[in-house]
Amino acid sequence: MNRTHPTRTRPIRARLACTLAAALLALPAVSVHALDGKWTPQQVLDIDARWLKQQGLKLPPSALWDGERGTGLLTGTVNIAGCSGAFVSNTGLIVTNHHCLFNLVQEHSSPQRDLITNGFLARTPAEELPGKTTRVEIPKRFTDVTARLLAAVPAGATPQQRLKAIDEAQKAIVAECRKQADIKCKVSAFDDGVTYTLIESIELRDIRLVYAPPRAIGEYGGEIDNWSWPRHTGDFAIARAWVGSDGRPADFAEGNKPFAPEFFFPISNDGVKEGDFVMVLGYPGITWRSLIADEMRERRERFFVRREDLFGEWIAILEKASEADAQARIALAANLKGIHNRYKNAQGQIAGLDRGRMVDKQRAADDAVAAWAAKQPAHADAITARDALREVLAERERSWERDFLLNLIPMGNDSVAGGIPPLPKGLYFAATLAHNAVEQGKPDEARASGWTAAEQSRLRDRLRREQANYSIDADRRVFAALVRRALALPQDQRIAAIDARFAGKTPAQIDEAIAALYAGTPVFDAAAQDAMLGEGLDALSARKDPLLDLGIAWNRELRALRERERDWNARAALHRPAWRRAVAAHAGKPIAPDANGTLRISFAHVQGYAPRDGMQYTPFTTLAGVLEKHTGKEPFDVPANVRAAAATQPTRRVNFLADGDTSGGNSGSPVIDGRGRLVGLNFDRVWENVAGDFGFNPAVSRNVSVDIGYMLWLLRDVEKADTLLQELGVASRK
Amino acid sequence: MNRTHPTRTRPIRARLACTLAAALLALPAVSVHALDGKWTPQQVLDIDARWLKQQGLKLPPSALWDGERGTGLLTGTVNIAGCSGAFVSNTGLIVTNHHCLFNLVQEHSSPQRDLITNGFLARTPAEELPGKTTRVEIPKRFTDVTARLLAAVPAGATPQQRLKAIDEAQKAIVAECRKQADIKCKVSAFDDGVTYTLIESIELRDIRLVYAPPRAIGEYGGEIDNWSWPRHTGDFAIARAWVGSDGRPADFAEGNKPFAPEFFFPISNDGVKEGDFVMVLGYPGITWRSLIADEMRERRERFFVRREDLFGEWIAILEKASEADAQARIALAANLKGIHNRYKNAQGQIAGLDRGRMVDKQRAADDAVAAWAAKQPAHADAITARDALREVLAERERSWERDFLLNLIPMGNDSVAGGIPPLPKGLYFAATLAHNAVEQGKPDEARASGWTAAEQSRLRDRLRREQANYSIDADRRVFAALVRRALALPQDQRIAAIDARFAGKTPAQIDEAIAALYAGTPVFDAAAQDAMLGEGLDALSARKDPLLDLGIAWNRELRALRERERDWNARAALHRPAWRRAVAAHAGKPIAPDANGTLRISFAHVQGYAPRDGMQYTPFTTLAGVLEKHTGKEPFDVPANVRAAAATQPTRRVNFLADGDTSGGNSGSPVIDGRGRLVGLNFDRVWENVAGDFGFNPAVSRNVSVDIGYMLWLLRDVEKADTLLQELGVASRK
Repeated sequence: MNRTHPTRTRPIRARLACTLAAALLALPAVSVHALDGKWTPQQVLDIDARWLKQQGLKLPPSALWDGERGTGLLTGTVNIAGCSGAFVSNTGLIVTNHHCLFNLVQEHSSPQRDLITNGFLARTPAEELPGKTTRVEIPKRFTDVTARLLAAVPAGATPQQRLKAIDEAQKAIVAECRKQADIKCKVSAFDDGVTYTLIESIELRDIRLVYAPPRAIGEYGGEIDNWSWPRHTGDFAIARAWVGSDGRPADFAEGNKPFAPEFFFPISNDGVKEGDFVMVLGYPGITWRSLIADEMRERRERFFVRREDLFGEWIAILEKASEADAQARIALAANLKGIHNRYKNAQGQIAGLDRGRMVDKQRAADDAVAAWAAKQPAHADAITARDALREVLAERERSWERDFLLNLIPMGNDSVAGGIPPLPKGLYFAATLAHNAVEQGKPDEARASGWTAAEQSRLRDRLRREQANYSIDADRRVFAALVRRALALPQDQRIAAIDARFAGKTPAQIDEAIAALYAGTPVFDAAAQDAMLGEGLDALSARKDPLLDLGIAWNRELRALRERERDWNARAALHRPAWRRAVAAHAGKPIAPDANGTLRISFAHVQGYAPRDGMQYTPFTTLAGVLEKHTGKEPFDVPANVRAAAATQPTRRVNFLADGDTSGGNSGSPVIDGRGRLVGLNFDRVWENVAGDFGFNPAVSRNVSVDIGYMLWLLRDVEKADTLLQELGVASRK
Repeated sequence: MNRTHPTRTRPIRARLACTLAAALLALPAVSVHALDGKWTPQQVLDIDARWLKQQGLKLPPSALWDGERGTGLLTGTVNIAGCSGAFVSNTGLIVTNHHCLFNLVQEHSSPQRDLITNGFLARTPAEELPGKTTRVEIPKRFTDVTARLLAAVPAGATPQQRLKAIDEAQKAIVAECRKQADIKCKVSAFDDGVTYTLIESIELRDIRLVYAPPRAIGEYGGEIDNWSWPRHTGDFAIARAWVGSDGRPADFAEGNKPFAPEFFFPISNDGVKEGDFVMVLGYPGITWRSLIADEMRERRERFFVRREDLFGEWIAILEKASEADAQARIALAANLKGIHNRYKNAQGQIAGLDRGRMVDKQRAADDAVAAWAAKQPAHADAITARDALREVLAERERSWERDFLLNLIPMGNDSVAGGIPPLPKGLYFAATLAHNAVEQGKPDEARASGWTAAEQSRLRDRLRREQANYSIDADRRVFAALVRRALALPQDQRIAAIDARFAGKTPAQIDEAIAALYAGTPVFDAAAQDAMLGEGLDALSARKDPLLDLGIAWNRELRALRERERDWNARAALHRPAWRRAVAAHAGKPIAPDANGTLRISFAHVQGYAPRDGMQYTPFTTLAGVLEKHTGKEPFDVPANVRAAAATQPTRRVNFLADGDTSGGNSGSPVIDGRGRLVGLNFDRVWENVAGDFGFNPAVSRNVSVDIGYMLWLLRDVEKADTLLQELGVASRK
């Protein structure tokens, strides 16, 4: 049975130099441009075109983005359901990740028609499944409004007055912008106000599911493989954007027609090979690279530690409930998915921050900037600024534990909770209705963003979406867990709303009290919610519902926290720009701002990495690897028809690695080659790159993409979706 | 904190073709010579010298082994304590694995002077620690005696008569050989008798410990990393062989002097690089590549499954006892180490056999040989031979479960238990004394090998060695576990010795009965053992000790099993050679016989491998990796002085991979370069290669060696052992 010796593999000494340990010991080299960075569309045009060409860009940079005309590849990159996505046909087809359209799949799933498990393919447009709340935003125009906003600040203003002036100027700009038909407008701050940009986009409201693979493909590897390599996940799905018969954004209606985008990405038939230049386009969520070292320490020592702890508890509760019955399992699936993801993320952030000694390194970098700035008259304010940021942090930390709990219940657009599902739903519904009632008591123009009359339908949608996402029993248990945590807070950090109702109660009495709150409350009822959305605070109070009352009290404390946060934010908004200007001047090269959910582009190359000494992750996985992992048990249970087809094409690529600089919102990001052709969809980062939110490490910062060829192969060889392939401009047989 | 982009790693597409999955799908290529195989010294001279040169051998093959004169590199390769080792000085210094000298370290350890934890270095020869039972065998001469043995078989002999005739002829040859002074002689059968070789060696009895690193280095990674890559273990130790003042083998004595070997390996200062040719020399233990498919199935479905099960139970018992007190922890350490190793091995064999579909493949290969042989008049006996082997197997399987338990108590040299420690010791001592008494009742020349008068001292040593290896309490529990298993045997496979004493007893009653057996028995007492070694069966019986009586009864059944095995073996010895001759003729190229503990050489190259899709193991690990793994907790707790030194040399190599064809006894094998210089010590195989005992897979068959430079670095930079380094011919500072 002895076999002969194979051709020996080539020497790979070059790679050895890349081990993690070696990389951590090595000093970073310096060059004018760096590949890392999530660049804004405007910045792209500032980057040296020759350098981009050297990297592998085969198009003029202006093909990526034309700021004047609002055209270019980037306009094909949409924000869909909080993720990124790409137009891939002139008939409104959008590809994104399976996990980004999971809510849409879930809406149409039932134990009888389990689309989550079985997947879905619309053989004709008529079969497509409309989403109740899924929205698509298409970027249109980016305008720097920094000067205009800062000009609105009166001389001698306090930080709060300053920020208020900026806020009001922003609102004026947005209001003016909104006079355009069908245009959505917002102003985004970059690095706490180094710059401000007015972003105009078109929002489409009729988004329908065209294709989702079975969960066994779309989530292959599940939580085990999440944030990992080697990866074999088919994390893709297809939706279509529809518009009214007049071509304008419209709600779902029979007479609607497919949207014809200004730009869509051609799909590459060639794939990529190791070393190829690729670009990742999309809407990366929050990152923390512009934080000073002390703020990073707060993330490491408080934020992620507490999240890991809390999410671990939630997972245990929701999983137990899911085991109990199929209905709860479907209802809790999306929430569990989101929490699991954030749970593992918190662990990865902690591990990565520690492994990279990132806080220490940031402190050294900060100190170098400070030492330099001290000698630069133009940056004299940087030192004061850093001190002020530290002072704000010290204040925040004084009530940190309490504020962490209060912030678990997000307020409208408020994203303090950082993308985690609001839990418990009972408190979320009650506090949201209470907050809305308060805002409805103000004139429309005085309302906070997210609570204006124009935004009421969106708020209703959000509440409606959560209707599909809970099981009463599990929600009561999550509520009890929150109460136990609140009762354990230090004496100087109490939540009065909780103390008033639960102080001194035993765990059993807490459960009993929550059961009483949940019995007969109107807050879970969709029709009652609609009615209450129209009510002011007095009307809500008059209902004398104990859960609503708790929501009102909770909201009162949360609003007080927001007041304090407003002060902290005003001071940060005054000082961080001064500090960041010194950082940029000291670096002497363009620096991409922290991600903030706005459109960005990252330049990268297809490549593996050394996760640790003695090991190299190679940049591609294949169908052979999918079969290798198959155990027949979740999350490694490949459907039989896919297995049979895969066995005939073992070398077909499934996922690939590149050093794209990504973060959370980059899910579903189109990955395109130097010619602008779609070659993949970003869907994850590797474990060693979770803490990439705090800094880019060329040795291990890798994003994970699904090869678009895997999706095409499934559609062609397994689904026989010839019509859809034709629409995608891909030969149905190759 | 963003860093610049590193030089991109080179394309590694070539490696992608090597993924496990791809390798499994690929058909093996055919060539005249293959690198795989554990070649005998005689075979080396049959291999095409030009081909060896092509591979990287810079010496004439005769430098490896000169059969006429009994000289060459191979004579520097010794058998030490059941492992392999290498002379590295003309003053008798031998390097081998830390785990091979673990017993010696343990003998001199106490809670007060914990050499296991702290390591040991003799600064002068006078400080060296003598081993009570450690022996070294130096190969001297190999003579093919097949024709002479087969000539002794009378015409018309039954298989049993045939094997008896061969046995007697062997004994005569050995007796004749032993007339030479200081020469140890044995006849080894290859592949059940395709050939027989008389092996002459010199045995040295005064072996002393010179250097052992702290356990934290020698076992770095412990059971977690065992059988794995990436690996960072300093599995090395140094002993010295001493002889009498007359230069002849002698027991330990004050006036002894260091042994001057005929050959010793120079130590390389250059190390190896990827792709380098290396050779692995040593004494590989049992492998099963010459088995037919049905016999491999028995290994897969019965042998390894039952071992995994049993060893898991033993580990739980011994670990619990070790936690209780430090004395038990030291006493059980070596046993636990051995069992853990076999436990993980059993799991790896099962996984590897399944993953490689090795039984199915062997069946296809067998069928191909059979189809071919059916048409070859010269191999007409091959078909009958295969049928006969199947018939023997069928008989074995009828009492398989019972025989598995009986064989847990090894009999003297008897290695049926396959290198696992004998447990429970109480039964082992009793049954061994009983067996010895039976053998002592025979004339010396009629005694089985291992029980002759000349071998009595060795038997005593073995019993003495086990004195250090038990804790009474844990031993009772292991005994109880054995009884429970015996009582659960099917009705047609009972062990009468157990039934007689334990049938019908509850678990509590079993414990009680065993406690009674252990109370006041002489079998654990060293002095009593010595006395009993001189007693016949009647004298033993007259002691009326219940545990001794149980040992006598157990031994009676074990001897009956040996009788049946003799029949099975006689039939296998008749038929397997016929089958293997057909296999060899069908292959049309040299085939290395299965490993049988005799001296072998394997030709290899330094190289990594792809353990699975999307991953590549690179062939070297470094001190940076040692630090990366350090957690401060066992088994990843690097001593502070080693950490400090390692931080200054992060790229220094620690372990490396090659495709050396090795098995168990290869522990401590010298790994030498094409010039015959020592570059490493083999100490393990990778997980994907555990089932390499059943066949070589070029894609994943890799052995793990410690880079000799790691040992030198420790001696130089940490131990400051300048005198020892000088003796090793290595500059003390470089």
